[in-house]
Amino acid sequence: MDPHSQSPPPAAEDDPDAMPREQQQREEAPPGYVPPMSPEEVAAVEALLGYEFKDKSLVGEALTHGSFYLPYRSGDSTYERLEYLGDGVLTCLVSREVFLTYPDLPPGPLTRLRAANVDKEKLARVAVDHGIHRFLRHKAPKLEEQIADFVKELGQYEYHSNGLLDAPKVLSDIVESLIGAIYVDSKYNQEQVWQVFRNLADPLISLETLGKHPVSELLEFGQKTGRIVDISKDGWVKDTKVDVFVDGVLVASATYAQKKEIASNRAAKAALDKLKEMSGQSDVQSAPAEAPEPLDELDHYGALELQ
Amino acid sequence: MDPHSQSPPPAAEDDPDAMPREQQQREEAPPGYVPPMSPEEVAAVEALLGYEFKDKSLVGEALTHGSFYLPYRSGDSTYERLEYLGDGVLTCLVSREVFLTYPDLPPGPLTRLRAANVDKEKLARVAVDHGIHRFLRHKAPKLEEQIADFVKELGQYEYHSNGLLDAPKVLSDIVESLIGAIYVDSKYNQEQVWQVFRNLADPLISLETLGKHPVSELLEFGQKTGRIVDISKDGWVKDTKVDVFVDGVLVASATYAQKKEIASNRAAKAALDKLKEMSGQSDVQSAPAEAPEPLDELDHYGALELQ
Repeated sequence: MDPHSQSPPPAAEDDPDAMPREQQQREEAPPGYVPPMSPEEVAAVEALLGYEFKDKSLVGEALTHGSFYLPYRSGDSTYERLEYLGDGVLTCLVSREVFLTYPDLPPGPLTRLRAANVDKEKLARVAVDHGIHRFLRHKAPKLEEQIADFVKELGQYEYHSNGLLDAPKVLSDIVESLIGAIYVDSKYNQEQVWQVFRNLADPLISLETLGKHPVSELLEFGQKTGRIVDISKDGWVKDTKVDVFVDGVLVASATYAQKKEIASNRAAKAALDKLKEMSGQSDVQSAPAEAPEPLDELDHYGALELQ
Repeated sequence: MDPHSQSPPPAAEDDPDAMPREQQQREEAPPGYVPPMSPEEVAAVEALLGYEFKDKSLVGEALTHGSFYLPYRSGDSTYERLEYLGDGVLTCLVSREVFLTYPDLPPGPLTRLRAANVDKEKLARVAVDHGIHRFLRHKAPKLEEQIADFVKELGQYEYHSNGLLDAPKVLSDIVESLIGAIYVDSKYNQEQVWQVFRNLADPLISLETLGKHPVSELLEFGQKTGRIVDISKDGWVKDTKVDVFVDGVLVASATYAQKKEIASNRAAKAALDKLKEMSGQSDVQSAPAEAPEPLDELDHYGALELQ
């Protein structure tokens, strides 16, 4: 049999049986051939986004991870370039939204609000909230696990975990790449891009729902109350545990398998919760610097361990 | 005399003697009163930018540093909010420009090109190239010195010093704030913003003129040639000197008054220049990893000291 006869048949754009045909293509296709997204899948993504693409190939490109081409090549038509562009246009549009919503807000909080609305976790939430992650094209089984873990834990936090969750980067990437794809497809029409993102990202994080980062909050607490806060990342089990000491007493710990930063945040959060509970305050922040609460009773509580 | 009579007279919009009148106003004005920019100054800035503002007050806001209000208050109408907005819109537009200019470039170099065209030094260059810094309104004498130093050293580097110059942040800030002001004034018309910035920033840094960061280049050199490169920031005069050792031999040093990072970059650059000179190569990068050049002759050269 002539090996050239193995080249893929023309894309079955109008065929209602596109899915099986696509699988068949994949089996028959030469090494490295990657099928386009089926028209049904493209239409489903368009419906999720509320945007109809003129160039349908942009949808597949925005949703294709480099691993999808494995084991043959790392792939030309992957989402990274569109992700880069989407990151740029989102930065601009969210900057503008926050600027207009808060006409008197100083640049510090403006920047924090912008960051919270375009960071890895917020965009990964957008992907999961709208089921966009189901259309990711990849061949990296580990990604599937990470996404499943994230989806499971997400419900614990209404708007944002502020550093307690480790969102898979691939999820924020595909939201950025789809936004980049719309920017290209609409001939760089920022208002069309904004309309799509505004709907997807609803509710945007506002000054009211903007949380504090637990490590910053704990350190501020230390400063305000004159207590010595020590977040120790080199405990007795080196490199797998973060301990929080307040005035030399172990208040909370968190262990970690992968990211030390997430463990630090979780330990800080646990310490804050404990300190709040003990001082009977709903907000540790408001503890007056003049009259710090005594922390002697911490000894009776012992250390809180988190997994 | 009734203190209320000291309130400033109405702005002399049509008065050709606006400058002396403004000084007079400043002396008579109540504490914290800040005069608007004169119509002549506004027109001069508009001419530099190639953009005519509908709302002239945005020009003064974009060029007013917080210190301008000293000693009375830190100021409402300062450039920071517009700077935040300008940063967002520039990120988007430069992302797009680089994306379109290099249709096949992977995201890594795309991101480096974007960064080089909107970073502190590039934007500070734009301010100086067009004389925008002359219109900065401030009362911080130290800024004037920093700007003068930067202007003096700028000519040594054609496109970008890649970390060897310490550009005053205030200069990049006012370019961003003016861009933010145009974005607001044009009712968020990104094409008008781009037209202004494209002219101001010409020539944009391209793949051909994108330099390498000296520290990265030196470390890459070490990896490729199998030499041990050590950039030591704790020399015998602690915290004021950076030494570069290659295979244990001191190759270059740089001292610093303020920023350790700039000194590291300068020491790395001096080390690279020396290594290039010794190996007779115009590009150390191309040294083959298989056959590293011997470095024994370094001892005869001794250490190069930079101020």
